[in-house]
Amino acid sequence: RINGERLWDSLMEMAQIGPGVAGGNNRQTLTDEDAKGRALFQSWCDAAGMSMGVDTMGNMFATREGTDAGALPVYMGSHLDTQPTGGKYDGVLGVLGALEVVRSMNDAGIKTKHPIVVTNWTNEEGARFAPAMLASGVFAGMHSQEYAYDRQDGEGLRFGDELARIGWVGDEKVGARKMHAMIELHIEQGPILEAEGRDVGVVTHGQGLWWLEITLTGKDAHTGSTPMNMRVNAGLGMARITEAVHRIAMSHQPGAVGAVGQSNVYPNSRNVIPGKAVFTVDIRSPDQDKLDAMKAEVTRAAHAVAAELGLGIAIEDVGHFDPVTFDAGLVTVVRAAAERLGYSHMDLISGAGHDACWINRVAPTVMIMCPCVDGLSHNEAEEISPEWAAAGTDVMFHTVLEVAGV
Amino acid sequence: RINGERLWDSLMEMAQIGPGVAGGNNRQTLTDEDAKGRALFQSWCDAAGMSMGVDTMGNMFATREGTDAGALPVYMGSHLDTQPTGGKYDGVLGVLGALEVVRSMNDAGIKTKHPIVVTNWTNEEGARFAPAMLASGVFAGMHSQEYAYDRQDGEGLRFGDELARIGWVGDEKVGARKMHAMIELHIEQGPILEAEGRDVGVVTHGQGLWWLEITLTGKDAHTGSTPMNMRVNAGLGMARITEAVHRIAMSHQPGAVGAVGQSNVYPNSRNVIPGKAVFTVDIRSPDQDKLDAMKAEVTRAAHAVAAELGLGIAIEDVGHFDPVTFDAGLVTVVRAAAERLGYSHMDLISGAGHDACWINRVAPTVMIMCPCVDGLSHNEAEEISPEWAAAGTDVMFHTVLEVAGV
Ligand SMILES: NC(=O)NCCC(=O)O
Ligand SMILES: NC(=O)NCCC(=O)O
Repeated sequence: RINGERLWDSLMEMAQIGPGVAGGNNRQTLTDEDAKGRALFQSWCDAAGMSMGVDTMGNMFATREGTDAGALPVYMGSHLDTQPTGGKYDGVLGVLGALEVVRSMNDAGIKTKHPIVVTNWTNEEGARFAPAMLASGVFAGMHSQEYAYDRQDGEGLRFGDELARIGWVGDEKVGARKMHAMIELHIEQGPILEAEGRDVGVVTHGQGLWWLEITLTGKDAHTGSTPMNMRVNAGLGMARITEAVHRIAMSHQPGAVGAVGQSNVYPNSRNVIPGKAVFTVDIRSPDQDKLDAMKAEVTRAAHAVAAELGLGIAIEDVGHFDPVTFDAGLVTVVRAAAERLGYSHMDLISGAGHDACWINRVAPTVMIMCPCVDGLSHNEAEEISPEWAAAGTDVMFHTVLEVAGV
Repeated sequence: RINGERLWDSLMEMAQIGPGVAGGNNRQTLTDEDAKGRALFQSWCDAAGMSMGVDTMGNMFATREGTDAGALPVYMGSHLDTQPTGGKYDGVLGVLGALEVVRSMNDAGIKTKHPIVVTNWTNEEGARFAPAMLASGVFAGMHSQEYAYDRQDGEGLRFGDELARIGWVGDEKVGARKMHAMIELHIEQGPILEAEGRDVGVVTHGQGLWWLEITLTGKDAHTGSTPMNMRVNAGLGMARITEAVHRIAMSHQPGAVGAVGQSNVYPNSRNVIPGKAVFTVDIRSPDQDKLDAMKAEVTRAAHAVAAELGLGIAIEDVGHFDPVTFDAGLVTVVRAAAERLGYSHMDLISGAGHDACWINRVAPTVMIMCPCVDGLSHNEAEEISPEWAAAGTDVMFHTVLEVAGV
């Protein structure tokens, strides 16, 4: 078993860096706080006897040597960056849990055949620089590095410039590393494990996703002096499409979700009929056919609403990934480890996107999930118990021992 | 007939003060620009031989003496303040049209029995200090002066302090003046006159209004990892209530309008189900029973939506006025004047609130409306033609001659 107390202490120490305003964290990617978090992580890796490699996207790879020099490494990790009002565990548990696995191996004097690498992926959150999972996406060949470097934050600062500014442009070519396997431990960010009373989630699939940004164009007009039949109300169009997204997701149950997260009307004044609305649709399913059907239905419904209200409409794809099937062999190993350790467990489909979803395209990959209180995440009030953290990390420990060979 | 060219020149000269960013005006109440506009207006009143009185709300009253010293004055006027991105005519036409009537009387050597007073009401727009029609509301006894003085702008500045700062706290007690009649010329701010090809609107009624601010409380949650049946989606609730407001207004046709102008969800992030929504409902009708019924139906529908989605709900009244019936005798005089002058005209219900709607509670009042291009108002692109401006002002000229007695 890993040392749950040491793991928890490290989680709490990392949470000191970039404190939030309500008990959580604001340690957004490529900020000074991110740099401090990276430095602390590096010092811990050094102390654990690992050597650090960094690639040109700032991805960090701390290696513990294996006994077979020619064997490909087994990777574990996640991300240390947070949302602007993020929690202390989202991503961090996966990195520091992996570090704890190495520390526990050191304590027990365990040597593995394959080297072990603990990874911190740059900019998983995508809150400062969209899209999410940017650096693992470049690693997996989904985006070019030029594309990534050109991403801008809300103040117009470039990803490439900010990475250089904080001093974390490494010399390794992104994606050059080959992996024997990759294991990511992450909090669920949803309510299922807690509701079902399970200690550990064995993640078999990841949902595919489409993000659509819809802009409706009507006509600003006075709410009082414009007759109902002369209105071109973009806010009403947004309301109808929001309802349609919900209806379409419900019609594809089980195994589909859909919602509108961002909703903005202009000029957003009490007595002006909105002449413009800009909002984003998020639809997901682990089933490719369902996902494709939902996208087509949402698009059709949105055009129909625009036509019936006389609105102009533009729909832009602002994010997409296909459904993921994690490696069947690794899934079996994770499930057996949970079983052997006596933890209650269940199979899960990851509702959120994770670095592992991209890495799965270039290496056998699996995820382990830890329950979180009320399913709350992307929220400073995000909470997990030390016991849950230890259980997930124990399962990762046993999985890596099996996969890396003792 | 009035001098349409002089009227237009004065409109254009006033529009130089507090220019907007797109051809309109930003001359918000109690700003330095408002003070400059007031000074220009006062200089024009002085030049026209009028004497200025100012009350403790900053309302300006420029008097042209009548031949009967004991007769109550006939008032004309509107407001010189604008929206932050306002037009050049909303309010201004009513004040400078009234000034033009006096100038035309001077030109023609006309003397009236009743004195004539040209008025500029403070803070009609309500954009900087809510609510709208604030100073005419105090004049009519709808608000106390203390209430008005305590209104704060977005930066926390008090109305009373700002009025003192720009030097326009007068010495007259608000509402002490008694009126023989009050006439307000205003642009329609809607599309009806232009669509019907009429020069002049004879305003018989003003709509009553309710502004309701609705706050829905759900639970922030990840759009991907939260199953559909575990969501408490405040954005979906907002969408359903927005649709309900539209449906309820449509079910009360003709003679009712309803829309949601402000819509805000929190945290307003692509992959977070909104845990909170705050939005405002604007419902209006010239018919008190309809207005009451609509308010009850909207309230009921909103509670039903909240119940079906498991949302918390709070509904706050943030604005209200009852329907207005303008003085029947004055309406007849206005209609006859338009007829006599050969202007095409039609009866109108004012969709928007105006200072005249409050003054109607304390004096016989009527409004005259001027078409505006595309019904566009509260928009820098607001436009009217010089001919329309002259037609409305001609009708006001003849109305006031009739009412004040030559
Ligand atoms: N884990 C996570 O929240 N990733 C961001 C992308 C997504 O919304 O799934
Ligand atoms: N005229 C005008 O826009 N007044 C503001 C109050 C309203 O929305 O009717």
